[in-house]
Amino acid sequence: MNILSKKIGIIGGGQLGKMMILDAKRLGFYCATLDPTKHCPSHSISDAHIIAPFDDRDALRQLAEMTDVLTYEFEHIDAEFLNILEDEGYTIYPSPKALLKIQDKYEQNKMLKSAGIPIPDFKNITSIDELNDYVKDRGFKGMLKSRLGGYDGKGNYLIRSEADVEEAYTTLASNGSPIMVEEFIPFIMEVSVLATRGIEGDIVIYPVGENIHKNSILDETIVPARVSGEVHKKAHDIAWKVMEVFEGVGMFCVELFVTEDGSVLVNEVAPRPHNSGHYTIEGCLTSQFEQHIRAITGLPLGHVELLGPCVMKNLLGQEGEFGKTRIEGLVECLSEPELKLHLYGKEETKAFRKMGHLTVLSSSIEEALEKARQGYSQIKIMAEKG
Amino acid sequence: MNILSKKIGIIGGGQLGKMMILDAKRLGFYCATLDPTKHCPSHSISDAHIIAPFDDRDALRQLAEMTDVLTYEFEHIDAEFLNILEDEGYTIYPSPKALLKIQDKYEQNKMLKSAGIPIPDFKNITSIDELNDYVKDRGFKGMLKSRLGGYDGKGNYLIRSEADVEEAYTTLASNGSPIMVEEFIPFIMEVSVLATRGIEGDIVIYPVGENIHKNSILDETIVPARVSGEVHKKAHDIAWKVMEVFEGVGMFCVELFVTEDGSVLVNEVAPRPHNSGHYTIEGCLTSQFEQHIRAITGLPLGHVELLGPCVMKNLLGQEGEFGKTRIEGLVECLSEPELKLHLYGKEETKAFRKMGHLTVLSSSIEEALEKARQGYSQIKIMAEKG
Repeated sequence: MNILSKKIGIIGGGQLGKMMILDAKRLGFYCATLDPTKHCPSHSISDAHIIAPFDDRDALRQLAEMTDVLTYEFEHIDAEFLNILEDEGYTIYPSPKALLKIQDKYEQNKMLKSAGIPIPDFKNITSIDELNDYVKDRGFKGMLKSRLGGYDGKGNYLIRSEADVEEAYTTLASNGSPIMVEEFIPFIMEVSVLATRGIEGDIVIYPVGENIHKNSILDETIVPARVSGEVHKKAHDIAWKVMEVFEGVGMFCVELFVTEDGSVLVNEVAPRPHNSGHYTIEGCLTSQFEQHIRAITGLPLGHVELLGPCVMKNLLGQEGEFGKTRIEGLVECLSEPELKLHLYGKEETKAFRKMGHLTVLSSSIEEALEKARQGYSQIKIMAEKG
Repeated sequence: MNILSKKIGIIGGGQLGKMMILDAKRLGFYCATLDPTKHCPSHSISDAHIIAPFDDRDALRQLAEMTDVLTYEFEHIDAEFLNILEDEGYTIYPSPKALLKIQDKYEQNKMLKSAGIPIPDFKNITSIDELNDYVKDRGFKGMLKSRLGGYDGKGNYLIRSEADVEEAYTTLASNGSPIMVEEFIPFIMEVSVLATRGIEGDIVIYPVGENIHKNSILDETIVPARVSGEVHKKAHDIAWKVMEVFEGVGMFCVELFVTEDGSVLVNEVAPRPHNSGHYTIEGCLTSQFEQHIRAITGLPLGHVELLGPCVMKNLLGQEGEFGKTRIEGLVECLSEPELKLHLYGKEETKAFRKMGHLTVLSSSIEEALEKARQGYSQIKIMAEKG
């Protein structure tokens, strides 16, 4: 089959889906989206848009039937049904078999551990007593996690003292997901590495990015990460091993903790382009989105070296603002010529919703940071006054 | 008005319109297209598509009414009617008044000349005797041109000897456009410079690109052009002056001749993003398309410095191939990781039709040239066998 006549189906029409399509369109691909929101970010640039809930199996089957390869922009989807579709012969990347393992953080950790990849100690938790025993041995410190469905810190509860144990347990146990606990890692930095595997098994690894979170949501990514050469190498090697473990085709993001003694441990793995990889649009010749499209359509993978130091900063919906999106300070923000702005086109804003991001590629990290923060201070995502 | 709620209307849905929309969408803009071809390159990424001939005044008015700023991807459009719309209060960039002058090469040359910008000598021609007198004085050498509507060498006739005069005249005089003649410039290189003017009058000038034509169609653009620093400066200064002459808002491309003695003369001016500026997608932080969108929507202009040496090469429909597009050698072409491929998504191919382009950004011009030509040699734009 002529590769370009491969039609791509994407589950999810948010910003990640939109940015995948923008790059797929440059290469001339047809893209269909499944998303319940009519005016989602991907809507106006999709060749077709199935408006249906993500768990609508008829809609998922319809998307698979009208396209040649299925992919997804987030991992909390019906992996079991995708597995059925794959067994029926539909092409889905990354494979639903890898996705099923990754979706469940406990299973993910077990796989990583048995491959010898450094991760925090962890334990499945089925009662408050089990939790209590686990954290008591560790000075009442630990990270309680929903095994399924968490993101942006949701589904996590940091236990800092004995007093936190009960609330942590009752909060997460009532969510309907099984839970697990991880030892608390006193990390000095969070970093992430994008890795992509092609259909032929070829692997490319992007530079290491340094991630700064605010309220458990990614705020800034600084590339290259300000860590030693040794830490860069460890992070790179771990990402490579992770790709071998999951045998996934497509873009994966490996989030890592760096500790004071220079240890590097996997926090979690996402089987898709990732917020911390947005810098690649300007920072690398091949963006994470184009790379993902190349991988899942069987094209050779592109160049991943950094073109220059860069900083990505997320633009979230302002606290206290809810309703039709209105951008303030656009001109002021863009008055820095090295600043590149991305607005996702979400019709409605709310507090902390990811509405866009900005990237500065400059001659040094310090300069990029200063310009990114200056531009960021000028722009606000507000709601129209009712 | 909130700048982002400005809707953009684009006359023309070819590759230039498509690439404008891809960048406008990153910034979150709404884009409507007018193009007679349903499955034109812009179709699937436009928020709205009016399918009508370019000279359909009702359709042009409809596009103006449904958007807040009109622009165009090619200059051979109904500038007179756009002028009427502008006088009625619609916003159109670049201004139809500049467009009317630029459309007519004779008027364009007169404006450039009176501003003291170096151009070849030229003369309006209304009879074969006038033409004969003009070229006789110049050793029977000259370039006869249709004043209106030429592109990619169409509408030009190079007179090389006395024997060419009659055929040149009868060929072009029968085209329905008035004609003019220019002295023949024995140039050693053709270069071009992109220049953009914002709504506030701010101007940015891109690096100088070296253009190599084949069969009068652009084949390669090499940036930076391999000319002296003095020629770079002259080209830059001329582009700046041209922007002042036309007072245009938006992207302009100034095509120039470079002679052996280092003179630089304007060949022609296009009031739009240009094939020779495609390198800016990878080669600069702000592509010519994003820059155009920024200019016409009133946003500050972006960074235009070159990120590294690059080479753009056009992909034309193979000679002898006509019909549904089929790409050969895609995988082989993309096996060079530094090569970026752009395919416009035109359903039908024909000989010499612009179907895509490739760009290589590398560590030296020599390396970029070698990789671009190697990739180019692998890919072919064919037609499906009937």
